[in-house]
Amino acid sequence: MADINSPVEIGVTTGPIRGSRKIHVGARTGSGVQVAMREIDLEGGEAPVRVYDTSGPYTDPNVAIDINSGLEAKRADWIRARSDVEEYDAREVKPEDNGQLGPDRSGGVPQFPNPVKRPLRAKAGHNVSQMHYARKGIITPEMEYVAERENLGRELAKDFVRDGEGWGAEIPDVITPEFVRSEVARGRAIIPNNINHPETEPMAIGRNFLVKINANIGNSAVASDVAQEVDKMVWATRWGADTIMDLSTGRNIHDTREWIIRNSAVPVGTVPIYQALEKVGGVAEDLTWDIFRDTLIEQAEQGVDYFTIHAGVRLAYVPMAAKRVTGIVSRGGSIMAKWCLAHHKESFLYEHFDDITEIMKAYDIAYSLGDGLRPGSIADANDEAQFSELYTLGELTHRAWEHDVQVMIEGPGHVPMHKIKENMEKQLEVCGEAPFYTLGPLVTDIAPGYDHITSGIGAAQIGWYGTAMLCYVTPKEHLGLPDRDDVKVGVVTYKLAAHAADLAKGHPAAQVRDDALSKARFEFRWRDQFNLSLDPETAEEFHDQTLPAEGAKTAHFCSMCGPRFCSMQISQEVRDFAAKQNESPESFLASEKLGADTAEASRQAAIKGMEEMSEKYKDMGQKLYLPEE
Amino acid sequence: MADINSPVEIGVTTGPIRGSRKIHVGARTGSGVQVAMREIDLEGGEAPVRVYDTSGPYTDPNVAIDINSGLEAKRADWIRARSDVEEYDAREVKPEDNGQLGPDRSGGVPQFPNPVKRPLRAKAGHNVSQMHYARKGIITPEMEYVAERENLGRELAKDFVRDGEGWGAEIPDVITPEFVRSEVARGRAIIPNNINHPETEPMAIGRNFLVKINANIGNSAVASDVAQEVDKMVWATRWGADTIMDLSTGRNIHDTREWIIRNSAVPVGTVPIYQALEKVGGVAEDLTWDIFRDTLIEQAEQGVDYFTIHAGVRLAYVPMAAKRVTGIVSRGGSIMAKWCLAHHKESFLYEHFDDITEIMKAYDIAYSLGDGLRPGSIADANDEAQFSELYTLGELTHRAWEHDVQVMIEGPGHVPMHKIKENMEKQLEVCGEAPFYTLGPLVTDIAPGYDHITSGIGAAQIGWYGTAMLCYVTPKEHLGLPDRDDVKVGVVTYKLAAHAADLAKGHPAAQVRDDALSKARFEFRWRDQFNLSLDPETAEEFHDQTLPAEGAKTAHFCSMCGPRFCSMQISQEVRDFAAKQNESPESFLASEKLGADTAEASRQAAIKGMEEMSEKYKDMGQKLYLPEE
Repeated sequence: MADINSPVEIGVTTGPIRGSRKIHVGARTGSGVQVAMREIDLEGGEAPVRVYDTSGPYTDPNVAIDINSGLEAKRADWIRARSDVEEYDAREVKPEDNGQLGPDRSGGVPQFPNPVKRPLRAKAGHNVSQMHYARKGIITPEMEYVAERENLGRELAKDFVRDGEGWGAEIPDVITPEFVRSEVARGRAIIPNNINHPETEPMAIGRNFLVKINANIGNSAVASDVAQEVDKMVWATRWGADTIMDLSTGRNIHDTREWIIRNSAVPVGTVPIYQALEKVGGVAEDLTWDIFRDTLIEQAEQGVDYFTIHAGVRLAYVPMAAKRVTGIVSRGGSIMAKWCLAHHKESFLYEHFDDITEIMKAYDIAYSLGDGLRPGSIADANDEAQFSELYTLGELTHRAWEHDVQVMIEGPGHVPMHKIKENMEKQLEVCGEAPFYTLGPLVTDIAPGYDHITSGIGAAQIGWYGTAMLCYVTPKEHLGLPDRDDVKVGVVTYKLAAHAADLAKGHPAAQVRDDALSKARFEFRWRDQFNLSLDPETAEEFHDQTLPAEGAKTAHFCSMCGPRFCSMQISQEVRDFAAKQNESPESFLASEKLGADTAEASRQAAIKGMEEMSEKYKDMGQKLYLPEE
Repeated sequence: MADINSPVEIGVTTGPIRGSRKIHVGARTGSGVQVAMREIDLEGGEAPVRVYDTSGPYTDPNVAIDINSGLEAKRADWIRARSDVEEYDAREVKPEDNGQLGPDRSGGVPQFPNPVKRPLRAKAGHNVSQMHYARKGIITPEMEYVAERENLGRELAKDFVRDGEGWGAEIPDVITPEFVRSEVARGRAIIPNNINHPETEPMAIGRNFLVKINANIGNSAVASDVAQEVDKMVWATRWGADTIMDLSTGRNIHDTREWIIRNSAVPVGTVPIYQALEKVGGVAEDLTWDIFRDTLIEQAEQGVDYFTIHAGVRLAYVPMAAKRVTGIVSRGGSIMAKWCLAHHKESFLYEHFDDITEIMKAYDIAYSLGDGLRPGSIADANDEAQFSELYTLGELTHRAWEHDVQVMIEGPGHVPMHKIKENMEKQLEVCGEAPFYTLGPLVTDIAPGYDHITSGIGAAQIGWYGTAMLCYVTPKEHLGLPDRDDVKVGVVTYKLAAHAADLAKGHPAAQVRDDALSKARFEFRWRDQFNLSLDPETAEEFHDQTLPAEGAKTAHFCSMCGPRFCSMQISQEVRDFAAKQNESPESFLASEKLGADTAEASRQAAIKGMEEMSEKYKDMGQKLYLPEE
């Protein structure tokens, strides 16, 4: 099979994001753990701003990227140092793993040049999950990494008055490795980290950490190829995706996944039932526990960090979906529903849940308990089918926790704004605060083509209420497969929604970046405004469409008011005026209490002070025409 | 001046929006009032869906559009029938009205061919405001029009269980003309309707009506021309703008406005201080009451329906802005702030408020009390300057109401999610439930280029809490001037946010369109899905990028799962299965109560029932491969 060892041409985007540098910060524990971050340099003597960085080595000019050999296994030593793992011969790759009847790969995807031949698993009787270590009181390097990464900007914000409504979140002023450990131990956060995916930069998903986002990629039965998907993975993480889900269907699922995992610095999740279904030719009722189990091992050895398992779709709930406007919209959910109906048996995922858990703990794979009965429309939100499944997911969460296996819970979907909070409250209650991971939700169904926005509205809200990770939605949702641009728009939309949630929750450092950008805007530092934004290219491109000249980048005006009059300039004059007084602006005011009388009183006080200052102000010179460069 | 009477080439978009027809529904009062609506035809024997229509005659194939003569004056008879108005000679247009020193129009904007030479005003001692009639117990044709227009879809929804959280809104099951009258009488809604803008189709802005949106257009000192602005007005209303604000600055303000108003079927608002500033060469401190008053008359005669008046920017509040990260970002606010500081006097807008009110009631112009001290960044949200001004706006609202003049209140701006509700609650309390009209608010400042989304998140929330009209934000906000595409994206984004708010408030008819679209999606009626969406062109374009073939429009699958497996199909099988039983799906369930035990119980019940049906189901034939057309 000639093509196996011939290098593949896969172009990905590398190099720093404009106006910023990759930096590595040593954990303050002195353990030597180095945490990757991004620092944005500012003009006008402003201190640089550090931001959370999911882009991996691809934005580090000092790292040579070779897609054909994959990323460096940074976590390998940490994993082996715990001496609770063993190498073994990997399961043999079968033709059906790639949806092929014969070994012929022609027309398919080339095999990754150096697949894992000797994967790791826990030694007999051991449990290698981060939750297991956490419960034994062990602080792992992964936990240290997370602590440093999440602390980002908190120093800058230390004099900051905290402000926000956390709805029960308990976000500390500073994140210590011990705090990370305790959150993981009690199941309120997870660190998805398959021991066979040592290329990852550890991250945490939990309501007391920054809100994370996931981007879905993957081949479909009707389109895309491996080069495109690897590029999408790199592209999505460049703009801020905290995890990636490979939702490939059709052929070449095994090889596509290998390419993605070996080159991904973020955790990778999958829905194993998709591949299992391909192995039985797409006939749901032909699925068996053995085929599914074999698929879990296959993916565990490749290094998948979390599995979506639809074990909550129980036989008894299936008929509830019959009453709906849009029935079952989850692909995994409908596969299991069909299996249950055809056999009139309880779901084999539910029946074999503890067997699945045994596999999870041998590789440290986290559960992402799937919401196979999530609503597919506003009309079906918060219905009996959805909540019945949620209660079962709560039961399964506690069963997984008995084995120290990490769990997060998937959530909707399509929910009008007034029903969003109920979803969060029920999930926290039923699932013991296990991290919630929602898809949107969309708050209306009338805007196909804009569902990144209809769902971004719901995502920001549910993130505020306590959802730990938001699964992005692209403009193509419900219509087609996202291309590169759609992926970027989806990621940026979800980053801003997640950030809005952090602000509203009162995350101590969240406002640092907003304030830096607002200050740059007020001072007409256009380049800083672009560089501090989530998408500098688009910001600059939009600016230049109206005022292309390079001079406009330093002009003290914008295209809204033009050079002859500018609100910002007036504000500066107001500020200068106040500063010229030997008293603070407050002294102009009789009182902080509001209301017309107070206004009248303060007005008197103000006029008194101002009359004296009248001449002084005139002396300041009220220049009105700003330099037109 | 040769060009005055030569017709101008202005291209605007006309013709029906795809898949829909313009219809006219007679008011059920039998008064003969005909209300324009849009009806979307569906396939598969589904009843057509009626939607609110702001597009005016431009989407009516039976109307010949001539931009050079303007729209038909549909309201003219209603206005004159009240016999409380008189014609008089219009104020002479002065060169400075268009920012010119001489009469030479070369290089400027051509004059509208037939400007209003004999405008109307209230006869001495009369008040022609809708509020005045309402308080006298008179139901005007305008109120009838609004009632019919807002009732839209309520019949379809009558068997609908109402559901939502209205935060104190009092939305009736059916809107009667009397309800409209009472809402206008108590100031909880306004119908912006200058008697010199008889081309409008009456609409209401109030918390107990559908949430409305405004689109800003207008020339700027650095760009655009009249043809472009008229086209933008038609384009924005085509996609759903309920009102338009002409924020033109620089030259040719008067003529640009005339072209826009004569061709606009929706209310037009302005910020008169912008034009007044141009008249004094941009020197804020040279503004006088006389110049401002003359500008109000000029615009009143042209037919402006609402004026943004920044009378709440009082001298005493100006220094409060000095403490801010972004000072004063409202252009009108900063103009008045500068005037106040330069003269050390109270704002002439505040001092002459009652004089302004006299003008408003003579033409039925509504106040849009401007928030000149709105926050320009997350850091400045809900601060002393903002709320001090709000309290003054409350005081002015009650003063305007003493003269039966309609009022709405402008709001922020930039507000993190946890501070949005406080804005709404304070406004309702201080301003006696006068309609709130907010710009966004943006919930974070870190995403320039995506501020239609950062603000759409805040807009959906504040609309849910009770804001009556949302001023759109385009992707170019803070960066440049919106082009045609930006206007469309801004309008559609705000339509979906306003609709999400209606759904959450529990508007009785809001969910009709969502359900129709969801049903079309479930049944793979692709064309219906496109036509029911806010932007059919974009929806279809996105679909075709993945599956271009015409066959795909009728295919019973989509590009996400492909033809071999489909969740929706499985759902249909589940439904058929349930239907085949001689019992309802409910009978599968032991109880409505949720929880693991119940699940177990219902599971037993289900298995029992299902075993009997096992054979029947198999007979149904479980076809899996769907036709690949």
